Amino acid sequence: MAEFERNPQQKTLMGPGPSTVDPRILRAMSEPTIGHLDPDFLQIMNESMELLRYIFNTENQLTMAMSGTGSSGMETTFVNILEPGDKVIVCVKGVFGQRMVDVAERCGAEVIEVNAPWGEPIDPEDVRKAFKETTGVKMLAVVHAETSTGVLQPLKELSQIAKEHDALLLADTVTSLGGVPVDLDDNGVDLAYSGTQKCLSCPPGLAPVSFNEKAVEVLEKRKTKVQSWYLDLTMIRNYWGKERFYHHTAPINMVYALHEALRIIKEEGREARFERHRKNSAALKAGLKAMGMQMLVKEEFQLPPLTTVVIPEGADDVTVRKRLMQEYNLEIGGGLGDLKGKVWRVGLMGYACTKSNVMFFLSALGNILTSMGVKVDKAAALDAAAEKLAE
Amino acid sequence: MAEFERNPQQKTLMGPGPSTVDPRILRAMSEPTIGHLDPDFLQIMNESMELLRYIFNTENQLTMAMSGTGSSGMETTFVNILEPGDKVIVCVKGVFGQRMVDVAERCGAEVIEVNAPWGEPIDPEDVRKAFKETTGVKMLAVVHAETSTGVLQPLKELSQIAKEHDALLLADTVTSLGGVPVDLDDNGVDLAYSGTQKCLSCPPGLAPVSFNEKAVEVLEKRKTKVQSWYLDLTMIRNYWGKERFYHHTAPINMVYALHEALRIIKEEGREARFERHRKNSAALKAGLKAMGMQMLVKEEFQLPPLTTVVIPEGADDVTVRKRLMQEYNLEIGGGLGDLKGKVWRVGLMGYACTKSNVMFFLSALGNILTSMGVKVDKAAALDAAAEKLAE
Repeated sequence: MAEFERNPQQKTLMGPGPSTVDPRILRAMSEPTIGHLDPDFLQIMNESMELLRYIFNTENQLTMAMSGTGSSGMETTFVNILEPGDKVIVCVKGVFGQRMVDVAERCGAEVIEVNAPWGEPIDPEDVRKAFKETTGVKMLAVVHAETSTGVLQPLKELSQIAKEHDALLLADTVTSLGGVPVDLDDNGVDLAYSGTQKCLSCPPGLAPVSFNEKAVEVLEKRKTKVQSWYLDLTMIRNYWGKERFYHHTAPINMVYALHEALRIIKEEGREARFERHRKNSAALKAGLKAMGMQMLVKEEFQLPPLTTVVIPEGADDVTVRKRLMQEYNLEIGGGLGDLKGKVWRVGLMGYACTKSNVMFFLSALGNILTSMGVKVDKAAALDAAAEKLAE
Repeated sequence: MAEFERNPQQKTLMGPGPSTVDPRILRAMSEPTIGHLDPDFLQIMNESMELLRYIFNTENQLTMAMSGTGSSGMETTFVNILEPGDKVIVCVKGVFGQRMVDVAERCGAEVIEVNAPWGEPIDPEDVRKAFKETTGVKMLAVVHAETSTGVLQPLKELSQIAKEHDALLLADTVTSLGGVPVDLDDNGVDLAYSGTQKCLSCPPGLAPVSFNEKAVEVLEKRKTKVQSWYLDLTMIRNYWGKERFYHHTAPINMVYALHEALRIIKEEGREARFERHRKNSAALKAGLKAMGMQMLVKEEFQLPPLTTVVIPEGADDVTVRKRLMQEYNLEIGGGLGDLKGKVWRVGLMGYACTKSNVMFFLSALGNILTSMGVKVDKAAALDAAAEKLAE
């Protein structure tokens, strides 16, 4: 049936995600499907919860994977905590903060926005002010790693402010989990969600979430039903928990993939993993700078797994990305929203975060820019990157 | 890392789903992950839509797969059509009809229930009565193949009634799609959802949905936003559609699996596939009857992919199912809700719907029942099944 052939080629995925999937994880996907209440599967679920706690660095009992992609994780946190009329402060500094506002409003919540320019983190003073201007705020929501800008948001001061006002702190860790420390407990994050297709190097399809006891208490004290049946944690936690009540059929093979991804992380060790992301990212940035390019984000707020680099003058955004794909089978991301045509988003996530990929990308980009008449020093770029890697 | 080993064994899945996954589909799962906006992936999405139309037997343009399991498909149909205060008639004759009521209520809809005893279909006269007793009903919802009872609900008369009252007809085709004709257009079904882990023989994780023009018009005329961002078809159809607007990252490898499952169906041909389900199921039932057992459902409403057989006197439900698993690696389902301990649910779905599985199950069950002192004629069972298969 040549009509419906499907032969996806191996590509180097250095965009904002999905990132290149580890072949070990792809093999795990193809293990035999067993029943969703089979004791062997329940064991895999238990281990996945334990391993998720390791990478979230939390003791939260309610730590599990929702049966949808990262965005379903976002929706899970909002619909389970918010009830109509509740007040929520949402920090907006990119596309995913904007999405939070939309999701929160659909819960019937009153949304107070705190904004920062795209490419900058949220200023805690602005959050403090927002809390002062209103009372009874139930939750403060912030994106830890904003995938649209490459900003890594410091969390500790925000959690301090939330605590002072008896509000929960929610963090989006989609692009941070597995690539930089998220340290839920130490950072004072009450609930968080993530996705599998970034620094966990899985295919997309599951959304890890974690709720601490304070967040669970809010869930348990709800006066109204969670508006989404599919994402209702008051039921789902009894499936992932000891009760094993049937709720829906879990995506078995995706859970195999997540389990394998987490085993790989445990084998490498989280600290070693974060250091690898830091180092390769530093090399990438050194190389780009040596070619005369600027980063969108100030150094202290840069997100190692995702670098946003300003497109140099004379280079056409779409042409460069198309040529990288056509000539090198290499995918990077363009800008989203306000940053469209202004930046490239270069991912170094999980399995794809390697020295080889740093050198490969710098070479490929250097060649294409040169051929387009943009003057860049390719040799200097490779030297600068190599120097960082040797540190 | 022996601590987190994972070696799921190949089992014969003859419960209510997941069913045994075709190895071709498992291999498709492990193909390299590519970007969710990669032209090669968009082509796979397009083909999947075309192939879904083939098995739904519909011309509906809006025919695609939601990024969640079958239950997310149910929620998709309700949240996209219903707005607060809308009236919906829900037919309840098992667990999944009950779930529809719960989902509809969470949309703020006014739900009118039409009930039938578990194991029987809905009587169209009762639906007619319900429509007469209220005005302005927006939708009539019914489970085509009730997975908790094994009843196949005739749809034509219901669609006629819905049409007379200018209401949409929604059908749950989770356990029918790919195993029996669903014929959306011919049956006058306006919108439907399904799952991948039943007669499509995929792992769980996607929910095919199909909306006709009438349903899309209702969607477009909404006064309020869809309460679920994740399942909002006003946006998602622009990702699966020509516009290709980014909404969320599709579960790439699950889409490979669905694409492969649908190719397999196209190769076999839908009519041949339905005939295979009919024939193997007839053999199964002949064998069970020859062992003296009764079916829960009257013959004309029996669902070929899922047979509910009354547990014979002297046989302990849980013991029998445990022994089938331990001694034969064979999974069947127990009863849900009111039918707990009263019936077994035996699936013959997709790849697992084979002559061999019919004979294997009858032999295994016969052996276990005999060893428990339940008198059954094993030879007669195999003869009766073989005779049906030879027809």
